[in-house]
Amino acid sequence: MSRRRLLLGGGATLAGGSLAGAAATLALSEPGPDTASVVTAEAKGAQVVPFYGNHQAGIATGAQAHARFLALDLKPGADRSHVQRLLRLLTDDAAKLTAGRAPLAGNDPEIPALPSRLTVTFGFGPGLFDAIGRGDHCPDVIRNLPAFATDRLEDRWSGGDVLLQVCSDDAVPLSYALRRLVRDSRDLASVRWCQTGFNPARDSEPAGTTPRNLMGQRDGTANPASDTEDFGATVWSDEPGWLRGGSMLVFRRIRMDVDTWDDLGRPAKEMATARKLSDGSPVTGGAEKDDPDTAAVDGQGFPVVAAEAHVVRATARTPTERMLRRGFSYDDGPDPDGKPDCGLLFAAYQKDAVASFVPVQKRLAESDAMNTWTTHVGSAAFAVPPGCTEGEYIGEALVG
Amino acid sequence: MSRRRLLLGGGATLAGGSLAGAAATLALSEPGPDTASVVTAEAKGAQVVPFYGNHQAGIATGAQAHARFLALDLKPGADRSHVQRLLRLLTDDAAKLTAGRAPLAGNDPEIPALPSRLTVTFGFGPGLFDAIGRGDHCPDVIRNLPAFATDRLEDRWSGGDVLLQVCSDDAVPLSYALRRLVRDSRDLASVRWCQTGFNPARDSEPAGTTPRNLMGQRDGTANPASDTEDFGATVWSDEPGWLRGGSMLVFRRIRMDVDTWDDLGRPAKEMATARKLSDGSPVTGGAEKDDPDTAAVDGQGFPVVAAEAHVVRATARTPTERMLRRGFSYDDGPDPDGKPDCGLLFAAYQKDAVASFVPVQKRLAESDAMNTWTTHVGSAAFAVPPGCTEGEYIGEALVG
Repeated sequence: MSRRRLLLGGGATLAGGSLAGAAATLALSEPGPDTASVVTAEAKGAQVVPFYGNHQAGIATGAQAHARFLALDLKPGADRSHVQRLLRLLTDDAAKLTAGRAPLAGNDPEIPALPSRLTVTFGFGPGLFDAIGRGDHCPDVIRNLPAFATDRLEDRWSGGDVLLQVCSDDAVPLSYALRRLVRDSRDLASVRWCQTGFNPARDSEPAGTTPRNLMGQRDGTANPASDTEDFGATVWSDEPGWLRGGSMLVFRRIRMDVDTWDDLGRPAKEMATARKLSDGSPVTGGAEKDDPDTAAVDGQGFPVVAAEAHVVRATARTPTERMLRRGFSYDDGPDPDGKPDCGLLFAAYQKDAVASFVPVQKRLAESDAMNTWTTHVGSAAFAVPPGCTEGEYIGEALVG
Repeated sequence: MSRRRLLLGGGATLAGGSLAGAAATLALSEPGPDTASVVTAEAKGAQVVPFYGNHQAGIATGAQAHARFLALDLKPGADRSHVQRLLRLLTDDAAKLTAGRAPLAGNDPEIPALPSRLTVTFGFGPGLFDAIGRGDHCPDVIRNLPAFATDRLEDRWSGGDVLLQVCSDDAVPLSYALRRLVRDSRDLASVRWCQTGFNPARDSEPAGTTPRNLMGQRDGTANPASDTEDFGATVWSDEPGWLRGGSMLVFRRIRMDVDTWDDLGRPAKEMATARKLSDGSPVTGGAEKDDPDTAAVDGQGFPVVAAEAHVVRATARTPTERMLRRGFSYDDGPDPDGKPDCGLLFAAYQKDAVASFVPVQKRLAESDAMNTWTTHVGSAAFAVPPGCTEGEYIGEALVG
């Protein structure tokens, strides 16, 4: 009997009707591909991802089914003591909510009792560094993410002083967590934007399956597995200083022109990425995790993989170019003419965006077959502090 | 081995990677409380609710985790032949999509392959009856739903000539289905509104558990069970004519003031409904499905259940007042000041709204403790045609 199975046995009490607090008896050290099979149907909602640790939760955590990305702006005049107060309060809220408990002053244990792997992940934008008088501690790439030729950015989806990435497999505890976090930030910050995303539902496919996006593609195939050395080397900052054990998040709202995409023939769709839609494997053969064979030629001697195929352009050319892509689809519904507004909330974690997102996106902006159907309409970059222990707050090493 | 288990055995092929079409080999005659326990984790996405039948799917179907309610307005000048064409096309789309197949002209079998109990339910507003020259066939209550004293209705959430209620346990196939249905309606109709809702995720709680709303209350306790005679007597029209086997849907967008609600003490919250938040049972004791004892008095002789408690006012006083409440929470995110915009997409099915929704809502508008925290901001009523067989289209008995 694995430790995981043992911990999850506590979920059986749920069936008896005592929901409040039951979730707190459960803990998934890090949900892996075999999680689903050992959790009883009754206990699914009680799954908890630990909040405290060396790294923040919600990064190595397998992507949940639902996400809300919330960007806050500090109110004019906010200083270091205000930021301290805000982060202390939000850290406390996040620790309680993700454990399945009501936040401070909350008296509704039932709503948060089934967090369904709720995570709250904090990111810091340039405005936070300036407010605390430590503008020089903000990584330059976070303050000055380069513009790219294909950008069509809108202010309403861009920027922010503080990011909260709130994820859960269940939209109900997610909604409750977000409203409590927002409420506890209202005195000190205003809402800059809030973007809602989703992945396939828990257990729609076998656990560990790469999720499909709204174009039908498996999205995130090249991600390092969370239990590998590769993962740490890709995601966690190892520079001395306050960011050590943290990461950098580049967030992009990428609109998809699904009208024209849906009409495109299968061969053209697969040419655009060099991967098959059926299972994400390269058009030149192999399995999902294999790279396409760019040297392959067809019967007439023409290359099978186009030079501008997305995978050819996007694949890391050096180990430092790698990222963890932890994206979610969005669909804000049709406009009065029936035109869809949907796409991808691209969220990439990496130790240093200068070495990974920037060169890769520069290459894609120069040439990428997918640019015909995708447009970047929002952009924000955040320094992601390391995790904390009980009694500390997220970002304490920076804010002090 | 039950028929259901047998049918679901087909889901095992999913693990082998052949997704397309696999879903079509599965059929849940009517998902019941024991569904979750017999479906393997791998097959959850492949669950199919049959589209064809005497009644439309998505009514007796246990409420899914996600819903989009889409109201269309016919374009000016639309006549009977246009409406025929629209309904024929949308019926064909709905039949294919809910079976896990791509719609007409769709060449992406992967996206719809895992419908997760996708249903598409059609409703007709007054404008459809007028367009086909049969205005007199529109039930008066659908055309002239009375105004209620507490209404604060906004046009942007109200009305509509055609309703599509699209539900699934998975937001991905739901998004795809909606965009294809909208696209195939664009020539003939415009989008009046689209409202997105959710319930607790599949398997967060044991199957058959009454879902919690964003106030933490179990919502839908009084619903008749789908396999009872009561259900048919409550929901399906038995009047001679085109609506026989159909129903009426009253849809209300009910905004919740969760800020003040969250701060309220537990006793006050439970007094407002006369039910406990923990398990939905009456404050006077008993189980969730029991009615509160309105005659109970406390030690000082005061009534335990207030006369204006929601359950006292909302409970059906005659069998004809009963409804099937099949609602979803909504959360459109905070405004810049951090004020939440969330509540309930109330969707009630009944054989005749004159006898059920209208008198009940009149009573609630007169007095209901919950009116302090809830406001009706949208309203629409639709006649819901019966189901159809293969080769027919929804509404054919009316539209001809």
